[in-house]
Amino acid sequence: MLTLDKIYHARHVLKQVIRETEVIKAPKINPEANVFLKTENLQITGSFKVRGAYYKISQLSDEEKAHGVIACSAGNHAQGVALAATKNGIKSIICLPDGAPISKVEATKGYGAEVCLVEGVYDDAYNKAIQLRDEKGYTFIHPFDDENVIAGQGTIGLELIDQLPELDAVVVPVGGGGLISGVAFALKSLKPDVKVYGVQASGAPSMVESLAENHIKCLDSVSTIADGIKVKEPGEHTFEYCKKYVDDIVTVTDDEVSSAILALIEQHKLIAEGAGAVSVAAVMFDKVPVKGKNVVCLVSGGNIDVTILSRVIKRGLLKSGRSDTLTIQLEDKPGQLKGVSEILANLGGNVVSIHHERASEDSDITDCLLRIVLETRNFEHIAAIRQALTAAGFNIVNK
Amino acid sequence: MLTLDKIYHARHVLKQVIRETEVIKAPKINPEANVFLKTENLQITGSFKVRGAYYKISQLSDEEKAHGVIACSAGNHAQGVALAATKNGIKSIICLPDGAPISKVEATKGYGAEVCLVEGVYDDAYNKAIQLRDEKGYTFIHPFDDENVIAGQGTIGLELIDQLPELDAVVVPVGGGGLISGVAFALKSLKPDVKVYGVQASGAPSMVESLAENHIKCLDSVSTIADGIKVKEPGEHTFEYCKKYVDDIVTVTDDEVSSAILALIEQHKLIAEGAGAVSVAAVMFDKVPVKGKNVVCLVSGGNIDVTILSRVIKRGLLKSGRSDTLTIQLEDKPGQLKGVSEILANLGGNVVSIHHERASEDSDITDCLLRIVLETRNFEHIAAIRQALTAAGFNIVNK
Repeated sequence: MLTLDKIYHARHVLKQVIRETEVIKAPKINPEANVFLKTENLQITGSFKVRGAYYKISQLSDEEKAHGVIACSAGNHAQGVALAATKNGIKSIICLPDGAPISKVEATKGYGAEVCLVEGVYDDAYNKAIQLRDEKGYTFIHPFDDENVIAGQGTIGLELIDQLPELDAVVVPVGGGGLISGVAFALKSLKPDVKVYGVQASGAPSMVESLAENHIKCLDSVSTIADGIKVKEPGEHTFEYCKKYVDDIVTVTDDEVSSAILALIEQHKLIAEGAGAVSVAAVMFDKVPVKGKNVVCLVSGGNIDVTILSRVIKRGLLKSGRSDTLTIQLEDKPGQLKGVSEILANLGGNVVSIHHERASEDSDITDCLLRIVLETRNFEHIAAIRQALTAAGFNIVNK
Repeated sequence: MLTLDKIYHARHVLKQVIRETEVIKAPKINPEANVFLKTENLQITGSFKVRGAYYKISQLSDEEKAHGVIACSAGNHAQGVALAATKNGIKSIICLPDGAPISKVEATKGYGAEVCLVEGVYDDAYNKAIQLRDEKGYTFIHPFDDENVIAGQGTIGLELIDQLPELDAVVVPVGGGGLISGVAFALKSLKPDVKVYGVQASGAPSMVESLAENHIKCLDSVSTIADGIKVKEPGEHTFEYCKKYVDDIVTVTDDEVSSAILALIEQHKLIAEGAGAVSVAAVMFDKVPVKGKNVVCLVSGGNIDVTILSRVIKRGLLKSGRSDTLTIQLEDKPGQLKGVSEILANLGGNVVSIHHERASEDSDITDCLLRIVLETRNFEHIAAIRQALTAAGFNIVNK
């Protein structure tokens, strides 16, 4: 059973292993609240997951330790288990679907795990892990539905109360619910008036729907860039803790998450992964009632694939009016490009790239398509540029 | 004159304004040294510059304060001066060349400065600032060649000694030399056996060449992605301090800087700008003798334009063997793409994008060009993939 004692014990055990991550002021995330970031993206292994994994593994019996542990994950849990096992001097096997990004596979190996690539998707890797557990006697480390794992994550709640005694609310990413269960249990036990809000991706609202229907629901499909919280079904324990201790759970879209990732980069020089940024997105886009409050956004992790990061940056720029792509149909005669360029220069639109092609498949043979990527100030700026071009007789093909 | 007293005074003045940024362990940057990062990219305004600017402005006379201050910069100095002036309750004007990135202009305005966009390049903006100073009686805040500015930057040296008493060496980015002058003066005064190494971009080695020739040299042209240290000429004071207190200054290439930025993102979830990452690049690529030492890389700032960040990420992936682009000439007949795909799949190359075009201008009319962007593990992996394709009879056009 989860107790405050157990969370304090976890904190003691974790003291020499993890970092007590900083709480940083973030005044621009939402000017109407007093916003802070708990930077678990700066935790060792790049995510909070090492807390639960390490505490869980440290509490295994000598016999269990001798056999080693197994887990199934393509993400932060894999790295947390791998490092925790290595630091405890025991063997770990991580089952991953064979399509997992190379960077994650390499990172997991780097922390000392044996990686078992399984043909198929997550479920196939999970089944393989269970099979190996049964055959070889490994202990399976569940990513969230385990009281010791939850106790480890709960240590964040204890740190928050020390770091920010005037805390009014905490906003926490929710996938399977392990993190928020631990944090909410710790906070509500020590300071019951602190509000605890959860955030899920709108494409993976398993806990939201389960709570609404008051029973554990398994979603047919989930889709979000926040892959760390792309979970189809809450745990049994975590569902109960959320029901009892969490004030509300809201959702954010992938576009909102992209904007939050971009804001963290530009305003705070911090890399968050999608799952780590949902808490920031919820506060940025007023999904939780925190006006005038001291609110902590738990930035749970930073392990984002750099190729995805590039795409998120582009999307974030688009979605905040900082970038626009114009496709203009030009008559194929001299001086047309100059006319467009002059308008852009006068209005201060910064050209990032230009692609000019004649006789493409989707235009008349005599026409040209001009595709311009622009750096812009905001949506008003984009509207002004488009209006000026249209007024000068240029045909903007894309809206 | 610069004194240790002045630096301690600056520390006292700055106490309520700036953050004492964390020192974070960075074991993978160079496994042969004990590497730490001083995270001035997490400083308010995203760079150390606010230290010197604030201390300088705080020490102005009441009359000087009443007139306001002026500076010329498209970067971190602008933001530092703007915030420092606003916090001191005085007016600031920042002259910028009109081609400055929109994001920097907006950030500078956001900290409360009046922005004066000047047609032309940096030198034109500088001349305009001097003209306005003379006309209106503003105090010009030099970005580096000023003893109070240098004293402000020197507070980093005091913090380092407190945070890491066992410090053996510090590696510091060098542009005009203000930061390293302050840090070296503080460290050598308190702990003379600490080594202080500077790093410049190989495309802007003004201090390196000035020291080599033992007089201040003005470079004809400078070129680097590390725009924060793209400085043509050291200052008079900073040249003397470097000569006296700095052990050595080395250079790093733009590719090395890109790899360092990528390493900070992936290993530490931190955004550094080019200038901020040169110290990390120097330690990663063994430019400074720090084997077995406790060495701090001063990550001086994180204000990188996000569009440049995207490009740096791509370059960093290429330069570390984590990405490859293959251009393959295919016969225009069915099944060719399948043959290539099979080889890639067997060898575990992750396809990021494919572009397949027929009859392009630079191929025979019956041929196709297949352009594939791949995610790869390392250079050996790339070589294995290219070899397998060639062995199967595919013609790889690009080397």
